[in-house]
Amino acid sequence: MAMAYLDNSATTQVTPAVAEVAVELMCNTFGNPASVHSLGLDAHKITEQARETVASFMGCKKEEIYFTSGGTEGNNLAILGGTLAAKRKGNKVITTAVEHPSVLQAVEELKTRGFETVVLPVQKNGVVSLQDLEDAIDEQTVFISVMLVNNETGAIQPVDKIREIVKRKNSPALVHTDCVQALGKYPFSLRALGVDLASVSGHKVHGPKGVGALYIKEGVRILPQTYGGGQEKGLRSGTVAVSQIGAFAKAVEQLPKGNEGVEQANRLREQLLLGIAQVPDAVINSTLEGSPYIVNCSVAGIPSEVMIRALEAEGVYVSGGSACAKGGRSHVLLAQGIAPKLVDSALRISFSNHTTREEIEQFLNAFTKACRFLHRKR
Amino acid sequence: MAMAYLDNSATTQVTPAVAEVAVELMCNTFGNPASVHSLGLDAHKITEQARETVASFMGCKKEEIYFTSGGTEGNNLAILGGTLAAKRKGNKVITTAVEHPSVLQAVEELKTRGFETVVLPVQKNGVVSLQDLEDAIDEQTVFISVMLVNNETGAIQPVDKIREIVKRKNSPALVHTDCVQALGKYPFSLRALGVDLASVSGHKVHGPKGVGALYIKEGVRILPQTYGGGQEKGLRSGTVAVSQIGAFAKAVEQLPKGNEGVEQANRLREQLLLGIAQVPDAVINSTLEGSPYIVNCSVAGIPSEVMIRALEAEGVYVSGGSACAKGGRSHVLLAQGIAPKLVDSALRISFSNHTTREEIEQFLNAFTKACRFLHRKR
Repeated sequence: MAMAYLDNSATTQVTPAVAEVAVELMCNTFGNPASVHSLGLDAHKITEQARETVASFMGCKKEEIYFTSGGTEGNNLAILGGTLAAKRKGNKVITTAVEHPSVLQAVEELKTRGFETVVLPVQKNGVVSLQDLEDAIDEQTVFISVMLVNNETGAIQPVDKIREIVKRKNSPALVHTDCVQALGKYPFSLRALGVDLASVSGHKVHGPKGVGALYIKEGVRILPQTYGGGQEKGLRSGTVAVSQIGAFAKAVEQLPKGNEGVEQANRLREQLLLGIAQVPDAVINSTLEGSPYIVNCSVAGIPSEVMIRALEAEGVYVSGGSACAKGGRSHVLLAQGIAPKLVDSALRISFSNHTTREEIEQFLNAFTKACRFLHRKR
Repeated sequence: MAMAYLDNSATTQVTPAVAEVAVELMCNTFGNPASVHSLGLDAHKITEQARETVASFMGCKKEEIYFTSGGTEGNNLAILGGTLAAKRKGNKVITTAVEHPSVLQAVEELKTRGFETVVLPVQKNGVVSLQDLEDAIDEQTVFISVMLVNNETGAIQPVDKIREIVKRKNSPALVHTDCVQALGKYPFSLRALGVDLASVSGHKVHGPKGVGALYIKEGVRILPQTYGGGQEKGLRSGTVAVSQIGAFAKAVEQLPKGNEGVEQANRLREQLLLGIAQVPDAVINSTLEGSPYIVNCSVAGIPSEVMIRALEAEGVYVSGGSACAKGGRSHVLLAQGIAPKLVDSALRISFSNHTTREEIEQFLNAFTKACRFLHRKR
């Protein structure tokens, strides 16, 4: 049976070209970039080329990219490192209720370190109110973290507007955005977004798990959270993971440029939404203004896990929400004011740039069948 | 020209079998272990098998192994997490002057967080005095970090004796050991060592860069240093890097069992030492009681970097010391009381279990030639 993998917001399949780069760097150009001999130098060059590739795709300077072990480390380093560095300027941190656990938990940790934390609600469409954000910023505010594309619903936050607000309020606050679900799926330029810090991850874009990058705008000072050999300009100690970084850069290289990916995803989403609309009791939890790569829907009365198993039997893979919140009720959907009954039935169908019409069709057939069968059973 | 890679303490070449596992896990079993569907479950199983492999090799339970992004993260998590968790019991941390930067810098960071830190000297042979250690432990001591095998000289610390001392002094101190250079080269059992925490790294044993493990003895409580999805029982959030972990486990599986590797390394070291002894002015900085995998020597008057370049021209790769201390004068050799002049000429020749007699021969030929040529030039 063909597989329809529609859980790309959880993780993606590494492409052969990316794996090939990883193997080459593991087995041939295997030096430690910190070594002074030519094997080290070759490995260093690979890392710097990768930095250039990632920077150029994200619209920033090569020197502003710092490699990490993934999105969670990037979010932690940005939030803890940025806030702790600004300790003397103030003690207030602002974020939203729909952030990834690695943002919410890092902010929670700051509470135990004496910071005041504000977790802003979102509107019905999953988007934070800019007025709320503006009202929350005061002279104590040193850090704001708002994600670009939500990992469960695809809701897009008005991150580009935050810098203006911060400026208008004359606030020294650093602005961070979790771009993990945006990379390669929502065309953005860090320059245009105007943020100070942004985190991305390799395994969401057909790169390997265990690698990512943090953008730190030139001139922005944050404190390291790992101490040691001083790699990545002292901000991220640890042997530079060349094969991971090279493979990540290859994955970024393969991402669609401009709007071509989004247009394709829009067509797929249309196909998907039209199909879901035929299914009685199915409701869409995502907003149409969100990323076309993520559709969140619920069929009241059919628990997420039951539906996931039923779809899996037909070779279709989706999720109930974030893989990082295994088991728990989605805080994202609850924050949108969605009824707990529907939250318990939530399904996230998430595309990558490799998703096909056939996969959507396979999902729709399996979904329709499962809804009929499971409804009858109830 | 054949390559004699003798910088295995900096990093190693990934074996084809290990790379094959990585590719399989990147391209086929590519699920997120936190996902509830079968692709996630398959990835989870791989991770748990890998945990079992690493645990069994290190002589501990599967549940005591936590995967990290490498040695530096493991050392940081152990030291910061262990010490901060014990904050209420006392505020003194003990380590030695010859530790890896990721240990020394993490301990340094604790100073800024209100801890008293004691950095013990070492004797001429690079080994810490157990009497010194015993004297340093008082009722305020909550954490002790002493590496098993030194990364620059191969000196072996009497880690197995530390637990006894701690017990005798009735101290609640946690004992951590950096085993990065010991894994697969110095047969040890965590049970026998009696430590509470131990860090290892994949890329020192022909595994990929960017993966490692931390042993946390059952019942020992440490605090996480990264916050998020709660992976690795809440101690190391971040998507579990399945391909990295699976590849690391494969590398561990390929390590020699028992003493077979050490015996081979002993023979290679003998060949190497006999050869070096023929070279006028060459002195050995390592002790014979140390690991046979690492030989540190100096030729007074020839700076490390000059020698490294000369050897490289003959296809021979060695280092001046730790790759993680690029540029700086070795704190390890200085701590042993070695004259700065000799420290500036230090060369580290480091083996792996794949090192051959031919590589040693190639080194000796190049070394002899370089010494003659460079001495004449001076």
